[in-house]
Amino acid sequence: MKFGGTSVADAERIKRAARRIVAAREQGNRVVAVLSARGKTTDELIAAAAEISATPDAREMDMLLSTGERISCALCAMAINDLGHRAISLTGSQAGIVTDTSHTKARILDVRADRIEAALEEDMIVLVAGFQGMSTARDVTTLGRGGSDTTAVALAAAVGADVCEIYTDVSGVYSADPRIVPEARKLEVVSFEEMLEMASSGAKVLQLRSVEYARNHGVRIHCRSSFEDGPGTFVVGEQETMEHALITAVTHSTDEARLTLTGVPDQPGAAARIFETLAEANCNVDMIIQNEPLGEGREGAELSFTVPRDDLRIAREALQPILGELGIAQIDEEPEMGKVSIVGAGMKSHPGVAAKVFATLAGEGINIEMISTSPIKISCVIRSGRVPDAVQALHTAFELGADAVLEERPIGERAR
Amino acid sequence: MKFGGTSVADAERIKRAARRIVAAREQGNRVVAVLSARGKTTDELIAAAAEISATPDAREMDMLLSTGERISCALCAMAINDLGHRAISLTGSQAGIVTDTSHTKARILDVRADRIEAALEEDMIVLVAGFQGMSTARDVTTLGRGGSDTTAVALAAAVGADVCEIYTDVSGVYSADPRIVPEARKLEVVSFEEMLEMASSGAKVLQLRSVEYARNHGVRIHCRSSFEDGPGTFVVGEQETMEHALITAVTHSTDEARLTLTGVPDQPGAAARIFETLAEANCNVDMIIQNEPLGEGREGAELSFTVPRDDLRIAREALQPILGELGIAQIDEEPEMGKVSIVGAGMKSHPGVAAKVFATLAGEGINIEMISTSPIKISCVIRSGRVPDAVQALHTAFELGADAVLEERPIGERAR
Repeated sequence: MKFGGTSVADAERIKRAARRIVAAREQGNRVVAVLSARGKTTDELIAAAAEISATPDAREMDMLLSTGERISCALCAMAINDLGHRAISLTGSQAGIVTDTSHTKARILDVRADRIEAALEEDMIVLVAGFQGMSTARDVTTLGRGGSDTTAVALAAAVGADVCEIYTDVSGVYSADPRIVPEARKLEVVSFEEMLEMASSGAKVLQLRSVEYARNHGVRIHCRSSFEDGPGTFVVGEQETMEHALITAVTHSTDEARLTLTGVPDQPGAAARIFETLAEANCNVDMIIQNEPLGEGREGAELSFTVPRDDLRIAREALQPILGELGIAQIDEEPEMGKVSIVGAGMKSHPGVAAKVFATLAGEGINIEMISTSPIKISCVIRSGRVPDAVQALHTAFELGADAVLEERPIGERAR
Repeated sequence: MKFGGTSVADAERIKRAARRIVAAREQGNRVVAVLSARGKTTDELIAAAAEISATPDAREMDMLLSTGERISCALCAMAINDLGHRAISLTGSQAGIVTDTSHTKARILDVRADRIEAALEEDMIVLVAGFQGMSTARDVTTLGRGGSDTTAVALAAAVGADVCEIYTDVSGVYSADPRIVPEARKLEVVSFEEMLEMASSGAKVLQLRSVEYARNHGVRIHCRSSFEDGPGTFVVGEQETMEHALITAVTHSTDEARLTLTGVPDQPGAAARIFETLAEANCNVDMIIQNEPLGEGREGAELSFTVPRDDLRIAREALQPILGELGIAQIDEEPEMGKVSIVGAGMKSHPGVAAKVFATLAGEGINIEMISTSPIKISCVIRSGRVPDAVQALHTAFELGADAVLEERPIGERAR
């Protein structure tokens, strides 16, 4: 069971999480729970570091930030003990999470769960500080964004858990963002592949890395609400999803920006030089399109790509020094871009989905600026202001709110 | 070098401590620094635990509280790195502090300083989280009150440090509390034995346990100010202090309470039963006096003892159940008591000191309620309201503010 920052934000919520954990134990389960830092703790620690240093050392940043999850675990263990059960909190290091030495973004190399297993054998509830481990150099490391989800999945794999329950402030994975599409439906089950595409195209409920880890180790995830009972969404292997819905969900993001370089020289290595430069600046490039020159008198190709809007400045500054070297004529920026995607494992065996997407957006008068596809995803970059209309139109066109779709779903209780 | 909570209370103070540490390094020293939790961090963590549980589990309390010192160390390491030196922060566990399993009041069993020594070999400044260790059961433990001083002294012993510098918000050990006695003199050197008597009779500058550890392992302590330069007070072995002043200091406390039991049966074991009961209740008994019954018709002895005022209620409640069993007639309480003590290693070879103490207090019209002595200390329990007068009178009577006394002192620079 993994509880995120909002689920342990204050004393009342920690007690509620404790009751959840105890309930699971009293149903006869052995429980390992992974906790995040309380609501604003991490932000406060980051602010404290910023007061000290503009460029805090990464190793020390990890030592600092790893305290937040330990506080959550110790407090939750106290609450569980008060409920008449025995709990023990463990740091990432004590839990046997061994990572590489990449401070602030370490990767898990191994999980030596003997201490967890010994505690479970003694009928204890085990609480583990998420987001952290101990490096091969015996230093405290943190796993970067979404690290606690990854901790939970890694421990579930190591102890052979039946399921990894991720408790959040939403009740599961939806066919679209319910704030945009009121009739959006909670999905009972999605495949790892679908979830990966959804996470990478805007769905925020699960972190990409944790889903990758779950897929690679065959860990079933149950994504559900901390605040209400009832099932959420299971994320499982494709073989478990039985029949595929054609389309599972519409995802979106509204914080994209596009850069267009004109006059990119038609020579080998020019594009490589550009994207290597962006990668070195830690700028996260999403979609890329290159066009041959149009019209007379224009030389070189036109290269467009999208980045998160927050990375726009970094991208511009990183490219500036190499523009002259490559002979690029100009950079155009379009900061107000968004992206809408449809994801569905059934798409693979159904032609015509892309055509329906384009027709639907055209019917709304929405201009598609860039397109990218995978076997189970179609993404369109559009103006960010049109994203809500696009999400609603696609959700309706593919009938994702319809009850009928539920009939194909094998796992979990039927809500209706 | 050890920095207390007020010396690392905010970003500015952490940077100041970092500059101090770097200055020591640049003078050619190898430096290990022990840091306490920032100002109010520990109080905030205790409050967070109190919100969760009235009786928080001791193991989990240790997991919780140990985070405060780690935060200080990580932040200070960042500040040192910014000053162009390499620093590494270590938890108590990483620093090799091995304790017993008495959570919240663990005792240090061993210090395995190989990791510290390896870092020093690599020319790094080592920062260690005070107040904590790892138990023989591999759990995080804390050392209880004054624990960071003890960490510093234990590490100084383990690495064979030339000196253990304790930085606080006062500039050293004084011949009396300067808030009461304006002419009180900063002592250049005191012996371990004197410091132990002073710590146990009200001087708050060093914790008793750390002085005991220093005496047992021959660690020279230099107690000095975080906020000003210049030497503070050295605490060293008796052989180093050369000649003894007759009296070194006047110490005091104003937060004592006295309990008097009348009709205590004149039978073996009655007193033992009483003080065992108080010990089980964790009530800290200081001075004890037993009188034979006076006058006709009174049976049993009269037994008086002092406890910290905060323990008065605990003491009363602990004794209540056994009063009937022992046939004790009544308990009288006097909550407004204080204590004044004179400490000095030279006292051993000078008779007449006690007489001078009593005469001085009598001259001020101060009634002495109880007396206890050791070879180098005389303590008198008096009304708490008279404590300032008593401290001033004794300081004057023994000429502790006089410059002449300085001539006997061999260590440190002369301030005047």
